[in-house]
Amino acid sequence: MSLRNFTTVAERQVFLSGKLHKDLSNISKTLIDPERDIHCENLIGAISLPLGVAGPISLKLKKTSQLHYVPLATTEGALVASVNRGAKAINLEGGADVFAYKTGATRGPVFFTGSINHGVILADWIKNHHKDLKKIIESTSSHIVLKKADIKIVGQYVFVRFQCDTDQAMGMNMVTIAVTKAVEFITKKTGYDCLAVAGNYDIDKKPAWLNMIRSRGFEVCADVALSKKTLKTVLKTTREKLFDTWLAKCMIGSAMSGSLGFNAHYANIVSAFFAATGQDIAHTVEGSIGITTMHQNKNGSLTVSVYLPSVMIGVVGGGTKLKTQSEARSITNTKTSEELARVLGGAVLAGELSLLASLAEGSLAKAHKNLGR
Amino acid sequence: MSLRNFTTVAERQVFLSGKLHKDLSNISKTLIDPERDIHCENLIGAISLPLGVAGPISLKLKKTSQLHYVPLATTEGALVASVNRGAKAINLEGGADVFAYKTGATRGPVFFTGSINHGVILADWIKNHHKDLKKIIESTSSHIVLKKADIKIVGQYVFVRFQCDTDQAMGMNMVTIAVTKAVEFITKKTGYDCLAVAGNYDIDKKPAWLNMIRSRGFEVCADVALSKKTLKTVLKTTREKLFDTWLAKCMIGSAMSGSLGFNAHYANIVSAFFAATGQDIAHTVEGSIGITTMHQNKNGSLTVSVYLPSVMIGVVGGGTKLKTQSEARSITNTKTSEELARVLGGAVLAGELSLLASLAEGSLAKAHKNLGR
Amino acid sequence: MSLRNFTTVAERQVFLSGKLHKDLSNISKTLIDPERDIHCENLIGAISLPLGVAGPISLKLKKTSQLHYVPLATTEGALVASVNRGAKAINLEGGADVFAYKTGATRGPVFFTGSINHGVILADWIKNHHKDLKKIIESTSSHIVLKKADIKIVGQYVFVRFQCDTDQAMGMNMVTIAVTKAVEFITKKTGYDCLAVAGNYDIDKKPAWLNMIRSRGFEVCADVALSKKTLKTVLKTTREKLFDTWLAKCMIGSAMSGSLGFNAHYANIVSAFFAATGQDIAHTVEGSIGITTMHQNKNGSLTVSVYLPSVMIGVVGGGTKLKTQSEARSITNTKTSEELARVLGGAVLAGELSLLASLAEGSLAKAHKNLGR
Amino acid sequence: MSLRNFTTVAERQVFLSGKLHKDLSNISKTLIDPERDIHCENLIGAISLPLGVAGPISLKLKKTSQLHYVPLATTEGALVASVNRGAKAINLEGGADVFAYKTGATRGPVFFTGSINHGVILADWIKNHHKDLKKIIESTSSHIVLKKADIKIVGQYVFVRFQCDTDQAMGMNMVTIAVTKAVEFITKKTGYDCLAVAGNYDIDKKPAWLNMIRSRGFEVCADVALSKKTLKTVLKTTREKLFDTWLAKCMIGSAMSGSLGFNAHYANIVSAFFAATGQDIAHTVEGSIGITTMHQNKNGSLTVSVYLPSVMIGVVGGGTKLKTQSEARSITNTKTSEELARVLGGAVLAGELSLLASLAEGSLAKAHKNLGR
Repeated sequence: MSLRNFTTVAERQVFLSGKLHKDLSNISKTLIDPERDIHCENLIGAISLPLGVAGPISLKLKKTSQLHYVPLATTEGALVASVNRGAKAINLEGGADVFAYKTGATRGPVFFTGSINHGVILADWIKNHHKDLKKIIESTSSHIVLKKADIKIVGQYVFVRFQCDTDQAMGMNMVTIAVTKAVEFITKKTGYDCLAVAGNYDIDKKPAWLNMIRSRGFEVCADVALSKKTLKTVLKTTREKLFDTWLAKCMIGSAMSGSLGFNAHYANIVSAFFAATGQDIAHTVEGSIGITTMHQNKNGSLTVSVYLPSVMIGVVGGGTKLKTQSEARSITNTKTSEELARVLGGAVLAGELSLLASLAEGSLAKAHKNLGR
Repeated sequence: MSLRNFTTVAERQVFLSGKLHKDLSNISKTLIDPERDIHCENLIGAISLPLGVAGPISLKLKKTSQLHYVPLATTEGALVASVNRGAKAINLEGGADVFAYKTGATRGPVFFTGSINHGVILADWIKNHHKDLKKIIESTSSHIVLKKADIKIVGQYVFVRFQCDTDQAMGMNMVTIAVTKAVEFITKKTGYDCLAVAGNYDIDKKPAWLNMIRSRGFEVCADVALSKKTLKTVLKTTREKLFDTWLAKCMIGSAMSGSLGFNAHYANIVSAFFAATGQDIAHTVEGSIGITTMHQNKNGSLTVSVYLPSVMIGVVGGGTKLKTQSEARSITNTKTSEELARVLGGAVLAGELSLLASLAEGSLAKAHKNLGR
Repeated sequence: MSLRNFTTVAERQVFLSGKLHKDLSNISKTLIDPERDIHCENLIGAISLPLGVAGPISLKLKKTSQLHYVPLATTEGALVASVNRGAKAINLEGGADVFAYKTGATRGPVFFTGSINHGVILADWIKNHHKDLKKIIESTSSHIVLKKADIKIVGQYVFVRFQCDTDQAMGMNMVTIAVTKAVEFITKKTGYDCLAVAGNYDIDKKPAWLNMIRSRGFEVCADVALSKKTLKTVLKTTREKLFDTWLAKCMIGSAMSGSLGFNAHYANIVSAFFAATGQDIAHTVEGSIGITTMHQNKNGSLTVSVYLPSVMIGVVGGGTKLKTQSEARSITNTKTSEELARVLGGAVLAGELSLLASLAEGSLAKAHKNLGR
Repeated sequence: MSLRNFTTVAERQVFLSGKLHKDLSNISKTLIDPERDIHCENLIGAISLPLGVAGPISLKLKKTSQLHYVPLATTEGALVASVNRGAKAINLEGGADVFAYKTGATRGPVFFTGSINHGVILADWIKNHHKDLKKIIESTSSHIVLKKADIKIVGQYVFVRFQCDTDQAMGMNMVTIAVTKAVEFITKKTGYDCLAVAGNYDIDKKPAWLNMIRSRGFEVCADVALSKKTLKTVLKTTREKLFDTWLAKCMIGSAMSGSLGFNAHYANIVSAFFAATGQDIAHTVEGSIGITTMHQNKNGSLTVSVYLPSVMIGVVGGGTKLKTQSEARSITNTKTSEELARVLGGAVLAGELSLLASLAEGSLAKAHKNLGR
């Protein structure tokens, strides 16, 4: 007998509970969506992930600004408080400037050609049939648009990075289905085999410079100029200390470590925000890369910025429609994936401000001691 | 009025719900732990993250083997099914060999010395006071042991990577508190300022070569030799196809992308397992790095291995004690953090087998279409 | 008195020789170009770098093939012999296929804007004035053509990567002068300061993923299919051994080391060829990155390829016009920088074949013992 | 008839000259060492590489300081002048502090074990036989000492990074011969095959994080504090401009590019110094990695430092004994490889100062225009 033999959540729970002599009652209690809405096989219930709320945080766009609450699902003490403090600092300055540019979802199939000569033939064919491929890809969904196809010939292989606008969805499923169709067409017409529709030239859920350099999902950046007063009253530090800490940690320390993350803790905010709003938490990997910068301005203020080149986020599809995730997203005051990406950008900026200020003042351990255990 | 003004979850819900005119009732329903057990500020409830179970998977250690269920909290269709299929293949071969070596948690403070000359003085001082530092660090908890302190002088800075055994806890809080004490001692005795107790030479929650090369948390590796029969009947492919797909995707494709992840999708399994068992999901970043290898043996079988140099995992502390997380962990048939790391290693191996087989057979999109939307 | 006080090579030699009581007579003897042709300040003579010749190597282009000698200036025993052996293997197969695509020289100024808002303004301005910038750049030389300008906004900065075709020159001086003019125009018109005309977003003479992913100079690739016979008689190994050695070393070993070079020893051939033909030897850095691949074909042969994404090479300018360098280049049977890049590509392929074969057969140390000391 | 048929340089010249109808007379003229002293096959003469001299530069060690001339073989205009200007600035401050720590040469064989289980066995065996391996390695030369053997098990492979002190030689040949003996012993005693004595876990002549993190050859660092006066009179800039340029270029720009070189142009000085002093110029690759840092001190001065983690340099072996190379080294006022590494460190610091100052003042193109063409 195996889990596969059962057709309902209840049956699986009874089976597993009985077999292992373990109480799984809480797991069952916390499942609130009907099984048919959930894409998770051998479902036995749900994990209850604590949800805190930071903010509201004020984000500026053009001449206006809006307030956004930031839902964060986490078990790490001090994280919500940290974003909250950063938001307070940002709000005192009238809000942060945040930009989110859609690069789009990517899928990178790899073809086997056997030689560079053949690689050149295939690459030329793909370039020459861009319109056909666009048509095929866009025929798979009314929500997908092919934006670009980057081609690399290396040895016996040809890699193509299809980059698509997937509308309001994060879009990995959509782009996989679409690119599979494109691959079938290429294979049929040219005779070259596709070794994998996902050939790591996407590159998905692995830290990689390609996503820093070419971006993936959304390219998000945000900044704020902090006055001495805000630095002192909210962040309890000075701009010199904050700057020195940033430079030592985020730049020199990251360089010494061979990191793609020149930041303090993007991954904390990204993972908690992704879990809260129904994103794929494995995309925390891409979200952790990026660069925080600081500059001491002549007027005495300190400008702090964040740069996230690869934010995979959406407001439809995946886990976004589940009840709690949907409720959590509802408090963000956003409608589109772009807007949601902007809120994340602001929250990440807030998180950087607060953690770096804590580090500068030597209060990290204290915060963790008080809030974290 | 702000969230900070309220002291209970219920009050915050009412406030936020009323203010934003949003129904947050499901979020409130899914919170099952008492607030005092949860380290998340401005708590308003919980996210319900679907929990599936893969396995059991058979893992070998020395002469014996044991069966372990694999809890996976995810909203991605096909993930549990994928690990399940890989587990079936592994079990048919009598189980996978899995090893988990504890490197320990690391914290890397950065000191400002102003010159290399002074850097050399500080570095020497730290080396000469290793025993004192060990004593101080180990005085902060009966669970912590200082294993190593790597020192780097660069320009005006000295970075130290303290590496500690934190017993059954993942240990970041423990090591932060301990290293803060060590830093206070160093600062007091030498007069050199610490710019940040966490100077990114740990390096925490950022993708970085330092963790690949020096490891962090657990170094986990696993392998299995698959017979032609298992490849055919369970994975529906041949060893030649699987090998070619792996080589093109995990090695060449990852090299072309500048990746630290030479694998198919470690992050999927790591993030779902971490979420299920109460780990810090931001550590998915470290868990996503590593190398999958394959070798075609003379006897016709195919050996497949995974290598995860940086698995941050524990069985006490953080979210591990929450009810659903604790229940989920209870089905893994493990007691120690090392055992839990081994189960993750086996699950990651299973996930690699199945996804790479799907890719080799061109069935990824189909699986996603059937299970994923 | 300092070297600056003298105006001729002879005077400087006498001064330095006398002051340090050192014999520098050989250095003076080996200087054969008139000082006015040499761009090296405080000139005291020349280093005599031994020059060996490998080949000829047969390279195919379309339906024809040509023979090329390969001049290599080196002090490392076994290097010329190694390329020679590889060339022999290549020739037995009728020559290697080699392709060289010109990406062009790049220069990446960095502007300070102070905020992302201003960064967006500057970026838009640059995009909207592409034609003007093209005109300015192309006015500085009849040999330069602006191909592309990639723009990145990060925090308080805007980076632009100007990519230019510099005709038959490697072109760094040409592109620096041209981009300086473009920068002056941008600065004057927009008021934003340029912090550095070379802002490491080129990126020049530093190992970097940007040059792997976007290429620089020439993108060169080459391959050859080796029969069992050639493997046995020339390379003294089997295809299984060669493949296994390549996989373990160039792929797994390089991945474990966090390398941008997934190859055996590109740098050896690149540096020796650059020194011989008057290139800038510091560009060995870019030339060392790249990927060697192998594939075992159904017909029993083994295809081996090299991929060099960033070859900075030219046939005019720099040291190319010096007498010995010019003579050395004259034996390569090439006229253009593209042809010279192709010869290098073939030589690198030859070098990979031979060294990997030596390693596979455990004969590296022997070769070094016999030829190297 | 091929080059191999001839036994003297003269014969080869005549053959090649005649066959290709090219004048190679200058190449023949510039060869001044007897062929038996040169390790370069198919020798036809020598390349004449212009040699300039920068300095003298003042380097401090403990309480004393010494003056060192810096020989640079280059065809790049402005390079010698640039190091010269930097040296002048350094000298005005009483010299630079420079440190060189010997990590030693490394060679990283890769063994095939077929499984992790066997990998563990081999790794344990190597650890347990460290003394035997040390004895074997040290039996191959009176100049070699085994310092360390780092072992990594990954999948079917075991990588070992042997790290040796090779006395006054750069030592790659020495360590290759020694490790080959060690490998023979391991293979014979354990039965596990070595796939390559150089398995890219050294890692040699490829840019790689392993060499940044664990160092290779010498770890060299240098710094100097520049007064406002020196900045103004010699470097023609201010500390604010220099700092801003450094931060934008060497830190942010390099981070954006995915670089291992957080510096301005280490490779220029390393390659020219290596060519001048008989080093292996392919090691420019390792020499190009590293970090330049700056700090604005309270007293108005600016401290600038360089950090080169991987300098492969020696005073015996390779090309060091050739006549011109030996003469060039004779002017550096050094006896040991450590001293020579220190001079390089000082020269690199000088080069960074000058180029960054030029960039800060927008005078790079002008310098290249005047000195470079």
